[in-house]
Amino acid sequence: MVSTATTPRAKPQVSPHRLERLRQDINRGLERLLPPTSAKPQVVHEGMRYCVLSEGKRFRPLLSLGACEAVGAPARTALSVACAVEMIHTYSLVHDDLPAMDNADERRGQPSCHRKYGEGNAILIGDALLTLAFDVLGRNGTANALAIIQTLSRACGTTGLIGGQVLDLQAISQPSSATERILREIAEWKTAALITASIAAGALAGGGAAAQVKRLERYGQCVGVAFQLIDDVHDGEGMAQVLGRDQARSEVQRLIAQALGMLEPFGKRAALLGELASWLSTTV
Amino acid sequence: MVSTATTPRAKPQVSPHRLERLRQDINRGLERLLPPTSAKPQVVHEGMRYCVLSEGKRFRPLLSLGACEAVGAPARTALSVACAVEMIHTYSLVHDDLPAMDNADERRGQPSCHRKYGEGNAILIGDALLTLAFDVLGRNGTANALAIIQTLSRACGTTGLIGGQVLDLQAISQPSSATERILREIAEWKTAALITASIAAGALAGGGAAAQVKRLERYGQCVGVAFQLIDDVHDGEGMAQVLGRDQARSEVQRLIAQALGMLEPFGKRAALLGELASWLSTTV
Repeated sequence: MVSTATTPRAKPQVSPHRLERLRQDINRGLERLLPPTSAKPQVVHEGMRYCVLSEGKRFRPLLSLGACEAVGAPARTALSVACAVEMIHTYSLVHDDLPAMDNADERRGQPSCHRKYGEGNAILIGDALLTLAFDVLGRNGTANALAIIQTLSRACGTTGLIGGQVLDLQAISQPSSATERILREIAEWKTAALITASIAAGALAGGGAAAQVKRLERYGQCVGVAFQLIDDVHDGEGMAQVLGRDQARSEVQRLIAQALGMLEPFGKRAALLGELASWLSTTV
Repeated sequence: MVSTATTPRAKPQVSPHRLERLRQDINRGLERLLPPTSAKPQVVHEGMRYCVLSEGKRFRPLLSLGACEAVGAPARTALSVACAVEMIHTYSLVHDDLPAMDNADERRGQPSCHRKYGEGNAILIGDALLTLAFDVLGRNGTANALAIIQTLSRACGTTGLIGGQVLDLQAISQPSSATERILREIAEWKTAALITASIAAGALAGGGAAAQVKRLERYGQCVGVAFQLIDDVHDGEGMAQVLGRDQARSEVQRLIAQALGMLEPFGKRAALLGELASWLSTTV
């Protein structure tokens, strides 16, 4: 259950109570930033809320808050950035679930967006979430607002979220082409890019120095690939299929140990990031 | 062919040669900003170029350049903003054309994006264009970069492009609900919002003062609603159906005269904006 890493690691220091409070802060922030269902066009506003405010671990926005804290600012400084990150993540789920893509009927324990609101509305609901994320980032008054926008837009682009989804669709339609190299590329683009950017954006919101942001991005890269590997282990797909489940599991632990190593120079201020990585290692 | 407006108007002063040169600048800017087809994921990069670099009037990006010039900066100062505007416009066309929306087979004289690349790719190609637009705006070093992002993201949102498309879909499925008020709202959200924001963004890129931006936005509001009315006159739909073709035509001329009146305080510097509005009045 717990990492057997030999590399140094920060001891978990964040109470479940504090994690839960931060999750509530994120949920309240999202609630405030999403347009009210009373305003036109109601169906899109209702759909945005249905998708974003459904049960979620809030892993990516918590990473933003953790990175902000790691560079010495209060976690809440990055709250609007964290909310934008969750909107981006939800947009990508809504579009990936569409019939022309993964054709998923369920998401987060409820009917997927297009099953609930129809395909045309689901496309627009995804578009609206992506657009609102940049609106929020544009209004966000923290340091480095433009750098944050650059970081997140790149992670969403064709060498990030979108590229990963394309490669994933290709790998599904031609399973024989899915080598370990390709699958790692999918993990890096589809999952690790946004996770890394969520961390960099949080660190930038906290006014982090370039060297700090860089080190935290390396933490993010490891956590992101581990996250995708864990998903693959659970589904018996992708990397888990190519590497075998046991090897995939030890690769996860290696990556998380490496991630925790990156946090060393930040000391106690990286407690939240340490906790999130340690939690991840318990889920495989 | 020419407006019979009684309100004052700037005399057209821009040669077709200069308009064509500006269009080429925009096309070259887009060519440079779009990812190369040689890079992965090729299908998405190819599709982005197919949709953006196809024949287009470049009306919106020309408005950005014109607004930049009107506030006293060289038109080219707003070139990357203008390119971002064209990417946003193209994204909205790609998504609106999808089978779950307007189900259009052709666009700009060629097969629509999903007819050429399939539905899943077309969704991703649209997503990628919207994302790239914000990436370009985030990297754009002109004055007021954050204000530009706010202006454009709002125009793309649920009380802009997206809201207009929702109302339009509802009006199509329930033609009896399409009153003049609703149709004007559709015109304002679906068309005028992005046109107005293109102008405001260009003026902001040129370092325009708040009062100048406001006046140019009023020009944009008139031009935007006129633009949608002209579309309706040509298709015999929407407002043209409710008002009747002749009344719709005189409403266009009234709006354009009003738009030209807004340009007065800018004098000769508004020549390009004056020319674009005058051109519009010849197309109805």
